[in-house]
Amino acid sequence: MAARKTAAKKPKSAKKKTVDLSDLKARNAQMDALTLEMIREAAKRVHSDILKHAKPDLTFPVRSLKNVSYSGKQGFFEIGKQKKVRTLTVNTVKSFAQTLRMMGLSKELVENNDFATKRDAYYQSKNWDEARFDEQTESDTVMDDIEALFSVRNLSREQLRFIPDEHGGAVAGRLIVLDPDRDTGEVERIDCTRFGSGAYSIPSTVEQLSFETDAKFILAIETGGVFQRLQSHKYWQTADCILVSLAGVPTRSTRRFIRKLSDDCKIPVYAFVDCDPYGISNIYRTLKVGSGNAAHLSQFFCVPQARYLGVTPQDIVDYRLPTHPLADVDIKRAKDALKNDPFFKAHKPWQKAIEQLLKMGVRAEQQALAKWGLNYVIDEYLPRKLEQRAQFLP
Amino acid sequence: MAARKTAAKKPKSAKKKTVDLSDLKARNAQMDALTLEMIREAAKRVHSDILKHAKPDLTFPVRSLKNVSYSGKQGFFEIGKQKKVRTLTVNTVKSFAQTLRMMGLSKELVENNDFATKRDAYYQSKNWDEARFDEQTESDTVMDDIEALFSVRNLSREQLRFIPDEHGGAVAGRLIVLDPDRDTGEVERIDCTRFGSGAYSIPSTVEQLSFETDAKFILAIETGGVFQRLQSHKYWQTADCILVSLAGVPTRSTRRFIRKLSDDCKIPVYAFVDCDPYGISNIYRTLKVGSGNAAHLSQFFCVPQARYLGVTPQDIVDYRLPTHPLADVDIKRAKDALKNDPFFKAHKPWQKAIEQLLKMGVRAEQQALAKWGLNYVIDEYLPRKLEQRAQFLP
Repeated sequence: MAARKTAAKKPKSAKKKTVDLSDLKARNAQMDALTLEMIREAAKRVHSDILKHAKPDLTFPVRSLKNVSYSGKQGFFEIGKQKKVRTLTVNTVKSFAQTLRMMGLSKELVENNDFATKRDAYYQSKNWDEARFDEQTESDTVMDDIEALFSVRNLSREQLRFIPDEHGGAVAGRLIVLDPDRDTGEVERIDCTRFGSGAYSIPSTVEQLSFETDAKFILAIETGGVFQRLQSHKYWQTADCILVSLAGVPTRSTRRFIRKLSDDCKIPVYAFVDCDPYGISNIYRTLKVGSGNAAHLSQFFCVPQARYLGVTPQDIVDYRLPTHPLADVDIKRAKDALKNDPFFKAHKPWQKAIEQLLKMGVRAEQQALAKWGLNYVIDEYLPRKLEQRAQFLP
Repeated sequence: MAARKTAAKKPKSAKKKTVDLSDLKARNAQMDALTLEMIREAAKRVHSDILKHAKPDLTFPVRSLKNVSYSGKQGFFEIGKQKKVRTLTVNTVKSFAQTLRMMGLSKELVENNDFATKRDAYYQSKNWDEARFDEQTESDTVMDDIEALFSVRNLSREQLRFIPDEHGGAVAGRLIVLDPDRDTGEVERIDCTRFGSGAYSIPSTVEQLSFETDAKFILAIETGGVFQRLQSHKYWQTADCILVSLAGVPTRSTRRFIRKLSDDCKIPVYAFVDCDPYGISNIYRTLKVGSGNAAHLSQFFCVPQARYLGVTPQDIVDYRLPTHPLADVDIKRAKDALKNDPFFKAHKPWQKAIEQLLKMGVRAEQQALAKWGLNYVIDEYLPRKLEQRAQFLP
């Protein structure tokens, strides 16, 4: 244990990567202006159509797997060119009005520097008289359409001030998060080395954040148990890194946080998840390239620079890990990935790895490394893997 | 919005409640010594029985609903006097050995100042030769038995250094958490007013923490959406409080954190959850009195001092909230609570409230308040409710 007995010190300032705060402010103000402009334009078009006694319409990208492509160059799922047109008729009058009101709500939120969750927006509509939503699924669909529309101009739903209901994951390590106060603009400096055994909990929206760090990589971890072990033993100190707990399939804000941190500070992202089809094709694939039926989000929310540290099928052999047999659902998921998933189809090493897993017929959890000692993961596994980064799966 | 425009300031020191750190250290050391003593004693008894050629046995409290009582005085579910005896025979030799090895692992963890999750412990056993567990359910059962045994001497599983796999919830507000470094003992001061739009993420185990606060109450919140709203608008500043996000049914460490904070600093706990049978009988009841089939935990993990701020069935009427009809599962859950749950059977006001809900046939989410404006919850609902604390449900 002696090797891990190191006191917390501040990140060295020598090679610290910093962001200019006034730049960030200006960029955020620009995005807000663009958002307001787009909303006003859409409303104006509708208004002038009505004045001309023409039927107004709104055009949205089609959100479905059929209208998705995997861009090897960009590294994420992209939404295609198919559009659907919503014309104002007797039948569409309600959803047409709802779409306009929802965009109006967004305008209000940007102007007041406030935000709303999907659920908030649904309940807000209860005061929209005849335009109120009866079910949240209806308001979610309208919000998704608007989101897809704005994504074409590189604006995310968070920019529209619609934020997710769920929280983000936990963060610890060599990172200072800069978060400007929403009222005063005063910047809070949050030092993620100073949380003791606890951690920094990522807010629902992260667009306003900037970062200072001298970390060499971000380690994205599937389970809370492994995150707590690495955090309590200050693994981030010895390995010069930032730990992020994914807690299963990462939430929007966790993915966006990792992406933004990695982009802004130019640091690589390594994923450390269970070796099973769920860890590989749900957790890792969603983190890296996004998910098929939400391709309009991928440009913001995926982390194309992520690489797969482990646990790999070969690790099961090399580290003689305790395993469980693959369940039917695992086998189905793995075969689906090989056959239908554009990401896995584009990467030979992944096809080999998944085929190896299917052939072995077993899966292994990251905590299986505890067979060799609770801190084997810190003392042996991670250092060995990190010496061979070129071999990480894509 | 002007009312909420207040800059972050440090908690006033005047009425700050603090804990003596050396006291805390001494208490923790005492608990560790007691844990080791109990493990050694159990092992010695077995050893001397064997030397006397007698059959050794281990005695555990029975963990089942039949062996549970609701103590109105204590305010939580208590485990009864029924015991089960595990005698060493040909049939029990494996589980007997496993129980001893598991206690041995706990002894090692206390001595090395380390910890293991349930899953870690399971994988550790893969190196115990014939005593290894084949399934994690087996090792969980053995751990639960040991936990029940030690609970009789007021030692929690965390004291045995077995920690949960899941993380805790998020915290923001007028609170400083003191967390001693596990190696150096140096104390980290974590100021929960200084996390911008983010929050403090509660670690898996909180026994080592102490607190400084001048907050007037703890607000335990069901949904991430409402937590983010109150946090982003610094509601904790205007209301002098601490916000805790439960994120559904609170994890062990979240419940323990709230309990310890409330006990140590003598501040009341108010729960703010959805008005439906799940929010009332699962989330709130579990927070307040524990859960029936884990009664041996309740003494540590429930928060008997918690009171129910809302959303109440009467709030649905008073605030004209948008509702959803109760589903069959809601009705079943509510009727179960009235008929079988010792907690609700002990509290008339709750019986009336649940009967009112059943009669109305509807439920309402806490975010339904957004009908009256996104910040209605901050500007109107919470202030009004807090003026009538005596009327909070028990």
